[in-house]
Amino acid sequence: ARQGVAECVYTPGKRPEEVVAIVAELLAHATGPVLATRADPDTAQAVLAAHPAGRYDPQARLLAWRPAPPRGFRLAVLTAGTADWPVAAEAAAVARAVGLEVDVYRDVGVAGLHRLLDCVDAVTAHHAVVVVAGMEGALASVVGGLVAHPVIAVPTSTGYGAGLEGVTALLAMLSSCAAGLTVVNIDSGFGAAMAAHRLATAMAAAAGPGGGPHRAGPAGAGGTGGAA
Amino acid sequence: ARQGVAECVYTPGKRPEEVVAIVAELLAHATGPVLATRADPDTAQAVLAAHPAGRYDPQARLLAWRPAPPRGFRLAVLTAGTADWPVAAEAAAVARAVGLEVDVYRDVGVAGLHRLLDCVDAVTAHHAVVVVAGMEGALASVVGGLVAHPVIAVPTSTGYGAGLEGVTALLAMLSSCAAGLTVVNIDSGFGAAMAAHRLATAMAAAAGPGGGPHRAGPAGAGGTGGAA
Amino acid sequence: ARQGVAECVYTPGKRPEEVVAIVAELLAHATGPVLATRADPDTAQAVLAAHPAGRYDPQARLLAWRPAPPRGFRLAVLTAGTADWPVAAEAAAVARAVGLEVDVYRDVGVAGLHRLLDCVDAVTAHHAVVVVAGMEGALASVVGGLVAHPVIAVPTSTGYGAGLEGVTALLAMLSSCAAGLTVVNIDSGFGAAMAAHRLATAMAAAAGPGGGPHRAGPAGAGGTGGAA
Amino acid sequence: ARQGVAECVYTPGKRPEEVVAIVAELLAHATGPVLATRADPDTAQAVLAAHPAGRYDPQARLLAWRPAPPRGFRLAVLTAGTADWPVAAEAAAVARAVGLEVDVYRDVGVAGLHRLLDCVDAVTAHHAVVVVAGMEGALASVVGGLVAHPVIAVPTSTGYGAGLEGVTALLAMLSSCAAGLTVVNIDSGFGAAMAAHRLATAMAAAAGPGGGPHRAGPAGAGGTGGAA
Amino acid sequence: ARQGVAECVYTPGKRPEEVVAIVAELLAHATGPVLATRADPDTAQAVLAAHPAGRYDPQARLLAWRPAPPRGFRLAVLTAGTADWPVAAEAAAVARAVGLEVDVYRDVGVAGLHRLLDCVDAVTAHHAVVVVAGMEGALASVVGGLVAHPVIAVPTSTGYGAGLEGVTALLAMLSSCAAGLTVVNIDSGFGAAMAAHRLATAMAAAAGPGGGPHRAGPAGAGGTGGAA
Amino acid sequence: ARQGVAECVYTPGKRPEEVVAIVAELLAHATGPVLATRADPDTAQAVLAAHPAGRYDPQARLLAWRPAPPRGFRLAVLTAGTADWPVAAEAAAVARAVGLEVDVYRDVGVAGLHRLLDCVDAVTAHHAVVVVAGMEGALASVVGGLVAHPVIAVPTSTGYGAGLEGVTALLAMLSSCAAGLTVVNIDSGFGAAMAAHRLATAMAAAAGPGGGPHRAGPAGAGGTGGAA
Amino acid sequence: ARQGVAECVYTPGKRPEEVVAIVAELLAHATGPVLATRADPDTAQAVLAAHPAGRYDPQARLLAWRPAPPRGFRLAVLTAGTADWPVAAEAAAVARAVGLEVDVYRDVGVAGLHRLLDCVDAVTAHHAVVVVAGMEGALASVVGGLVAHPVIAVPTSTGYGAGLEGVTALLAMLSSCAAGLTVVNIDSGFGAAMAAHRLATAMAAAAGPGGGPHRAGPAGAGGTGGAA
Amino acid sequence: ARQGVAECVYTPGKRPEEVVAIVAELLAHATGPVLATRADPDTAQAVLAAHPAGRYDPQARLLAWRPAPPRGFRLAVLTAGTADWPVAAEAAAVARAVGLEVDVYRDVGVAGLHRLLDCVDAVTAHHAVVVVAGMEGALASVVGGLVAHPVIAVPTSTGYGAGLEGVTALLAMLSSCAAGLTVVNIDSGFGAAMAAHRLATAMAAAAGPGGGPHRAGPAGAGGTGGAA
Ligand SMILES: Nc1ncnc2c1ncn2[C@@H]1O[C@H](COP(=O)(O)O)[C@@H](O)[C@H]1O
Ligand SMILES: Nc1ncnc2c1ncn2[C@@H]1O[C@H](COP(=O)(O)O)[C@@H](O)[C@H]1O
Ligand SMILES: Nc1ncnc2c1ncn2[C@@H]1O[C@H](COP(=O)(O)O)[C@@H](O)[C@H]1O
Ligand SMILES: Nc1ncnc2c1ncn2[C@@H]1O[C@H](COP(=O)(O)O)[C@@H](O)[C@H]1O
Ligand SMILES: [Mg+2]
Ligand SMILES: [Mg+2]
Ligand SMILES: [Mg+2]
Ligand SMILES: [Mg+2]
Ligand SMILES: [Mg+2]
Ligand SMILES: [Mg+2]
Ligand SMILES: [Mg+2]
Ligand SMILES: [Mg+2]
Repeated sequence: ARQGVAECVYTPGKRPEEVVAIVAELLAHATGPVLATRADPDTAQAVLAAHPAGRYDPQARLLAWRPAPPRGFRLAVLTAGTADWPVAAEAAAVARAVGLEVDVYRDVGVAGLHRLLDCVDAVTAHHAVVVVAGMEGALASVVGGLVAHPVIAVPTSTGYGAGLEGVTALLAMLSSCAAGLTVVNIDSGFGAAMAAHRLATAMAAAAGPGGGPHRAGPAGAGGTGGAA
Repeated sequence: ARQGVAECVYTPGKRPEEVVAIVAELLAHATGPVLATRADPDTAQAVLAAHPAGRYDPQARLLAWRPAPPRGFRLAVLTAGTADWPVAAEAAAVARAVGLEVDVYRDVGVAGLHRLLDCVDAVTAHHAVVVVAGMEGALASVVGGLVAHPVIAVPTSTGYGAGLEGVTALLAMLSSCAAGLTVVNIDSGFGAAMAAHRLATAMAAAAGPGGGPHRAGPAGAGGTGGAA
Repeated sequence: ARQGVAECVYTPGKRPEEVVAIVAELLAHATGPVLATRADPDTAQAVLAAHPAGRYDPQARLLAWRPAPPRGFRLAVLTAGTADWPVAAEAAAVARAVGLEVDVYRDVGVAGLHRLLDCVDAVTAHHAVVVVAGMEGALASVVGGLVAHPVIAVPTSTGYGAGLEGVTALLAMLSSCAAGLTVVNIDSGFGAAMAAHRLATAMAAAAGPGGGPHRAGPAGAGGTGGAA
Repeated sequence: ARQGVAECVYTPGKRPEEVVAIVAELLAHATGPVLATRADPDTAQAVLAAHPAGRYDPQARLLAWRPAPPRGFRLAVLTAGTADWPVAAEAAAVARAVGLEVDVYRDVGVAGLHRLLDCVDAVTAHHAVVVVAGMEGALASVVGGLVAHPVIAVPTSTGYGAGLEGVTALLAMLSSCAAGLTVVNIDSGFGAAMAAHRLATAMAAAAGPGGGPHRAGPAGAGGTGGAA
Repeated sequence: ARQGVAECVYTPGKRPEEVVAIVAELLAHATGPVLATRADPDTAQAVLAAHPAGRYDPQARLLAWRPAPPRGFRLAVLTAGTADWPVAAEAAAVARAVGLEVDVYRDVGVAGLHRLLDCVDAVTAHHAVVVVAGMEGALASVVGGLVAHPVIAVPTSTGYGAGLEGVTALLAMLSSCAAGLTVVNIDSGFGAAMAAHRLATAMAAAAGPGGGPHRAGPAGAGGTGGAA
Repeated sequence: ARQGVAECVYTPGKRPEEVVAIVAELLAHATGPVLATRADPDTAQAVLAAHPAGRYDPQARLLAWRPAPPRGFRLAVLTAGTADWPVAAEAAAVARAVGLEVDVYRDVGVAGLHRLLDCVDAVTAHHAVVVVAGMEGALASVVGGLVAHPVIAVPTSTGYGAGLEGVTALLAMLSSCAAGLTVVNIDSGFGAAMAAHRLATAMAAAAGPGGGPHRAGPAGAGGTGGAA
Repeated sequence: ARQGVAECVYTPGKRPEEVVAIVAELLAHATGPVLATRADPDTAQAVLAAHPAGRYDPQARLLAWRPAPPRGFRLAVLTAGTADWPVAAEAAAVARAVGLEVDVYRDVGVAGLHRLLDCVDAVTAHHAVVVVAGMEGALASVVGGLVAHPVIAVPTSTGYGAGLEGVTALLAMLSSCAAGLTVVNIDSGFGAAMAAHRLATAMAAAAGPGGGPHRAGPAGAGGTGGAA
Repeated sequence: ARQGVAECVYTPGKRPEEVVAIVAELLAHATGPVLATRADPDTAQAVLAAHPAGRYDPQARLLAWRPAPPRGFRLAVLTAGTADWPVAAEAAAVARAVGLEVDVYRDVGVAGLHRLLDCVDAVTAHHAVVVVAGMEGALASVVGGLVAHPVIAVPTSTGYGAGLEGVTALLAMLSSCAAGLTVVNIDSGFGAAMAAHRLATAMAAAAGPGGGPHRAGPAGAGGTGGAA
């Protein structure tokens, strides 16, 4: 992989020694960030014992080695409720590991609209917005109507019954009456961060010498590429 | 049936002469309002020819005979988008036919939050609120957070793709993060009006002589009962 | 929050110390009831140790502080079968905590119709009815045909196979042939109680000085507002 | 095929000349009833022109040749609402064509419980009961609790929205709290009649000389066998 | 309850002492069989300690007190595969407890057709057939084509992936090309036995003095009635 | 494209002139068969007017130019019911157009098992078997248990209600208790024929000089490749 | 609305005169582009008669007035198959109307991988990529692995059977193994264009004087905001 | 069973002693391979203690006795990601046990296309290809476009959220734009191997003396038959 590209391992279903081996290979053959997502504390401890230069964020369940330096791209992450926090934490931690600057706005769900309205100005001072919401996911629609920014909506599996493990929030966000929302998989804080990473890469390329779009070669396996 | 009780015919799948016969029987054996819902213009014309004392509302697709006099119960009906209008029209027309006073607030969907906020004060001057919304149905959550009133949410089948013919709005409303919302069937303006009618009946009974709850006997077939 | 408004915490997925902190904040900044729902006994014990003025109802899994005084609104809660009891218990406990008077009628499912018919008279002496039923949820339809009251139907996830974890009862209640039923989320005794609370608030406002509807300001986060 | 066995053609998707040819073959090679189900009037007319000994029932959409003589088995068919009539008509017509005696009880849905209770005594004077109901299908549960007879429940696709084209009634009937209900496919009046036919065959065999169970050989293609 | 009527408790979700109390009441107030289904060994032991006259069948997970004497009705129970055995065991044990005579034919699934064909003659010597099958449930269709008897199909949740926890077998049985099959809930050996019990009751009534249909009064709560 | 490779156009949603243009291009730039599937008679006529060397099979709705010569691979196509014929016709016509020899066995569904057993010997004289069945699709399981051949199962959308437009047959075939069945999309006679074509290609390569597997280069766009 | 903001009407379900009126209002009160989507030719003609300054694109079914001038943002739109063209046409036309420069790459589906690989270099010379694909939607994953750009995936409802009207492509795109893809509603070329529009707005703001993020005020109803 | 036929036990849900007994019977009455699938280590150890001639593959969770000798049929097994390995291991182990030669190509998912392209030449040197992929399953489509071989696609339940436990990959593979793919059940490495076994049997028969198709008698229970 190339400079600045993140390599990611999805740890569930892999034994610690398998993760250790994959991380070893990625650290050896790539030069950018190396991430291991959804790592429980035991796995994290075992993997860090073998690769002690990394850091573990227990709320995000993220292991990260060689995080990228800040790239001047500011990302706002909003959560609807307390239960959405682990997903937002993953989004924020992954985004920071790939070089984005992240501000988080918690518990600004639509049932208490004033809290959301209070932070809209702060949110608009960012380049893009990630909205993390479960249950009916209405926060994405409201934010989409309030800002003209790219909005990446992450449905979460919080809630019960008719929430259908996040499927309801997913369908609702896709059906939103606010034009131009984009959506990633249920609980995928990782996916949202990677989508923001693609935005940041495009924006950096456009602002670079020549002002044209980036012309990255093919992204590495599981990576997201990026111009030098 | 008893005084003030609405008798209702669901016309789809019935031939005009069948509707004529059922309406004839209801007008003869009951004394309150008689309604025929979802009537297309041709059916309406044929049925009115036989029972000319009724009125047809083409937007609501409602035929109504012997509408109830106003009962002092004020109902606010909100719609998210233009496409939700036919369902809201049915809710309003049925509610009026059973004696409620209705004000409609159109196109106050959450993608344009200011329009909704502009009418909140007017909405709170009612006894209950019906929210008609399709796509992701977020309007119900936002309204539920803004008012302390009984909220009856009606999902509509407007939208496409992930909207799943109204199922997405239905599930979203049931999963709402605003506490105490109630929901009726997809596109059921009729159901929302009848639920409001039950509220009005309970409220009238509570406010009546003795101040106690109403003690209506069993409701008639398809009706909603209510003591004089 | 304002006088009489309930503030509610959903405890699943939160650690005891998180619940302790949120409850502390709510007790400090609001004046009405504070509730923590779905609390297992260990969480309950830990939270009560920090906030000993509350009470725990193990069947309802509810922690409640500063319950509201009775408001003169009588709510009937009916259950179809024994397995529906925990959901009904939650409905009853939450309703009592926000000031409603509750009578429960257990095991009146439609397979033994006489037991239901025996209690109809007693049920009609209330202001509204909550019907808690799983499996096929037929009890809601039968009750809706027997009484003219507001009916709030709560589908439960009891049953197996084709019951689809409560989805079948949910869809059945929404499709009911009894006009004007309203429905809340699967297993949401809390939602039913909060919907009843909205009815009680509206009814109290209507019966108050001036006789008009209530004009509450916006409800607090997760709360349901209430007239001063 | 053998004496008393019904041979059935499902006409949708077949051209009239195809139906004519299949019926010709069945009339030639079998000796019992020959049926063609779901025949629209045009198909019926074309097929009867070629095989004029048959009769067409337009409500049941059934063509029948060589109906079986009465077999002393009495079947009660109950419908919940007017819209369920075509399915009940198919059940009744097919049942009669295979030799059962049928009484129909219409519009006895659970929203008007007294009408159902009024006919329970008459219903119990039959050998088995077919319940035809759409929407939430609650009628099957209530009937199943009221009688000790074999109950064959037929969900119908009447209703809209959450009724999911009959799937809700189907799931509800399968999840019924009344023990020992059996269910056939959505809108399958034909299937219910054929299930009753199997009951009648078994009962006739049990009551025959020797009093033992029937020992029919294998049923013909699509047929339902029958005692010698 | 009346002579011969089974009273049934569904034990999952109830604590042993609750089951003990319900069984005590049923033994005291009814005279026929009392059953407790889906009882795990610990619950069974605890309940039998309090009511030692009962018997526990660990494969069927059934507790039974006062089983009915044989009624001369022979029921064949067929299973497709080894994994379907627990459901078939429940069907057989419940059927025996309510007085039916049961023969079980195991592992006669359609992938080894000769085994099924070998037992068809023996199967036809019964009054009715219960088919227990998971995965694609094809056994029900094949049996339905081979015998003219009443067939009660029980889909099981065995299998994985596209088997959808029994939903596939359920839908397949309902869609069967063999006319007149009836279906009960997924894994409901109990439901199948109770449906057979209804058949046996009807058949006994028809064969009784007068030869007419049975005229049972209303069935008890959760029971299945019975002739006087 | 290369010698022997089929190029296929899916006509629904394309205007006749679009099909004409695509076919023109395929005839010019490829040398093997050119097919246009799902062509209604009007489209077929218009396209044949422009490319008169082709042939139209109205039952299969297939247009074919330059059919491949026979390749010595014999394919048996079985259908469960009359309504499955159009799908089987497409399978047979496409298979013949790519050079396979096809025998069709109609109406051998499992409800009349003897008809199926009568043709098993003839079926086993082929290299592979395509099973076309709707409703519950049980025919695939039974055939899979009777023969050791490759079995390609095609679920069809015939049937109603619980058949879910072919989804039930699809799931049932995937869950089959007969080991080693393979499945293609609902109603995809085309897909089954193309899968058989892949088998024939592999078999021809294995039997060719050297006896090794075929080493085709990449297949053309939408084609299925084939050794020279 | 503000300079550069698009106002959009969704025409299905609205009568031509309703569209005329809404467009009139939007042209009068806003200054940026006005769009009417999904307009059939008759509606288009009627609306253009009243507002002749607009243009109609029949393939995109789009009516547009006052298109925005080019903004220097280059968007690549890729389609998998011929049948996906109408959705891609909508994406391209809406994107152009809001000021983006669009290049379309047609029929580059994964079954003919070389065609896709041939255009990758050209695609990477854009700022962002829209991928339009139906059936299994695999094109989005492959493109996401090949480029480091923002990818907006649009599932289409082309295909049949297991394609489930676009739901399969939607779920597949959301589950993609390529990190950081974003997804919009089924067939929503409009949504993809609006998402790209949000990207362009953010990029323009970032590249503007001061180099910071854009600080747009709230977007208008249904609009997408825009820098001053 | 006959020479070369595999007999298979599915172990989940069976106690070790049950597996021991079934294996004993199969070893005694059949002469070919005997397999026990999905065996966890404890079960494996217990069964091997009783039947020590077998071997256990812990990754494939397969127990095998009397593996078949190599038959000259080469099978390529491809996996998309690391998490798909257990399913691929089962496919490979079962295929080897029935006499196929297997090469596995790991981690060639479409997000890193170059790895896949690097192995295409090696893959084409086989007789058939099994593709094991979860998430969106795009690998099957890409492989199907690259090779002309029979392709057996195995969807896996890896992934989360919109992956729906493998249902998304299943539907995607069935909807593939690559013509002639075949699909087996989710996670069914066993089913894929057995489908390949059927291919090998057909190919061996075609290449045998006489060159005709194989004329196997009926396959044994759960087996796949095969000519001597
Ligand atoms: N939390 C996550 N959610 C979704 N995809 C992930 C996650 N973490 C890693 N991935 C992706 O999973 C793939 C690696 O899968 P594997 O080979 O099983 O480790 C890479 O393509 C990553 O982009
Ligand atoms: N209305 C109906 N509903 C369900 N199955 C039917 C119906 N009418 C006929 N059949 C069955 O359809 C089969 C005949 O199908 P076909 O060969 O397509 O005419 C026979 O097995 C009949 O039992
Ligand atoms: N009846 C059919 N069912 C499924 N796919 C088909 C059918 N006919 C053609 N195709 C495929 O559709 C693709 C052509 O799609 P299109 O470019 O829209 O014509 C080719 O990959 C064909 O393999
Ligand atoms: N093709 C389309 N797909 C989805 N949403 C649309 C489309 N065209 C317009 N809209 C949105 O529909 C809303 C207008 O709805 P309405 O008031 O019913 O015209 C606006 O929020 C638009 O952003
Ligand atoms: Mg939320
Ligand atoms: Mg809306
Ligand atoms: Mg119930
Ligand atoms: Mg009904
Ligand atoms: Mg089975
Ligand atoms: Mg079939
Ligand atoms: Mg595609
Ligand atoms: Mg994959």
